[in-house]
Amino acid sequence: MEASELQQNIARVAEIGPIKVWSVVVTVLGDLLQAPADTLSARQLDALVAPMGINNQALRVAVHRLRNDGWIETHREGRRSRHQLTAKGWAETERVRPHVYGEAPTRSGGVFLIVGPPQMAAPEFAELMPEDGTVLTSRSGLVVGAEGVPSNWLCTPYNEASPPDWVQDALSPKDISSEYDALREVVMPLLKAELPEDLVARTALRLAILHHWRRLRLRHGALPDLVLKDGWAGARCRDVVLDALSRFERPALSSLE
Amino acid sequence: MEASELQQNIARVAEIGPIKVWSVVVTVLGDLLQAPADTLSARQLDALVAPMGINNQALRVAVHRLRNDGWIETHREGRRSRHQLTAKGWAETERVRPHVYGEAPTRSGGVFLIVGPPQMAAPEFAELMPEDGTVLTSRSGLVVGAEGVPSNWLCTPYNEASPPDWVQDALSPKDISSEYDALREVVMPLLKAELPEDLVARTALRLAILHHWRRLRLRHGALPDLVLKDGWAGARCRDVVLDALSRFERPALSSLE
Repeated sequence: MEASELQQNIARVAEIGPIKVWSVVVTVLGDLLQAPADTLSARQLDALVAPMGINNQALRVAVHRLRNDGWIETHREGRRSRHQLTAKGWAETERVRPHVYGEAPTRSGGVFLIVGPPQMAAPEFAELMPEDGTVLTSRSGLVVGAEGVPSNWLCTPYNEASPPDWVQDALSPKDISSEYDALREVVMPLLKAELPEDLVARTALRLAILHHWRRLRLRHGALPDLVLKDGWAGARCRDVVLDALSRFERPALSSLE
Repeated sequence: MEASELQQNIARVAEIGPIKVWSVVVTVLGDLLQAPADTLSARQLDALVAPMGINNQALRVAVHRLRNDGWIETHREGRRSRHQLTAKGWAETERVRPHVYGEAPTRSGGVFLIVGPPQMAAPEFAELMPEDGTVLTSRSGLVVGAEGVPSNWLCTPYNEASPPDWVQDALSPKDISSEYDALREVVMPLLKAELPEDLVARTALRLAILHHWRRLRLRHGALPDLVLKDGWAGARCRDVVLDALSRFERPALSSLE
């Protein structure tokens, strides 16, 4: 892959969906800082996000915001700055790591079909729905695990090999599915392309892919994987993204300096 | 049990719910005619239903109606008449026999929780619901067996040891439950009372009990028994009724003449 071609590829990946700069920073630090004490220099961060079209000014604003939110802290070393995750940032990064990098759904406990009482209003049902649940009709839904389901709701283990189309649509909303498909389309040819020589550029490609994958993956829980198995866009995209992440592998922090 | 006491008991049983004379006749013939060729004389039929407060005129009307419906046929033997079930009457009697006399739910195939598509109107859902199913909310319900469930409905095996109150209420409507309880209340003391000597009167008591049991039992399918197990009025009543039916046993037809 030539430098200009690589740059085009990174831009192509970056464009598959909306990019929030602070969220890209979270992706980058979460990927590269593998221990609580790890740090990344401000200059390297800049070099890694620039290929995605993020300029230095936008990056400063994002870093400032993340510092205010207590997510990262920045230490000065002479004229240089180094970023580090705070305890909170580290904990949150650890929490989502299995969802982002995992091969399979990370929640167990089984899928349950739940039904709320007939006199309950639909908005109330949706509000009381456990996190990670998906509303199917005004008073029914699917959840992972039975904890958190109100005790006066009907709750039975869900076991259906081929759910009807409308259930698939509820679990795999069209906007998420089409972004997963777009990401897969852009990443697939990269798996067979020549490996980029420049380490920073190669890592920037990795991070662009990872960022969109992470952004999409964190918009849903384990339900679509558990219910739709390999038959949905997110699962098809996962295969390609995990291949790409092992091809454009995470560099040792020291090798980036 | 003295004759007057017995008469009071029969009347007490008869009064636990509304009585349709033609339906009583169906109960009596269905119980006593145990083979397609069996017959019952009109005079015996009269003697068996009279203690329930059914006069000869009402009985004639009911028998006429059942003959018109092709349920029974009546043969004359000199000045006497004998009733017999038609092929249709026999088939229908056979069909419900396991429900009426059975100890346990007669349908297998398991219970399924079903959910209709969110865009389906509630009345349409109720209409497309398989027979013997119970609607829970506007687009969800329980059914026995998955046959007959429209293919685009969600359908998963139901498995919940302690369903919430509103599910119990849906499966065991208050009017049916309170009639089951009333029947049980009236029949229970009879199990310990002295056995009536007169065979016709004893059989009339049997038939009064059986009639209300049959009337209630045919108002619902296997669902309440399968889902609520022993925990509902119908199951509690069944224990008492089946005891009573074996105590006030079915007489041989010949012994009634």
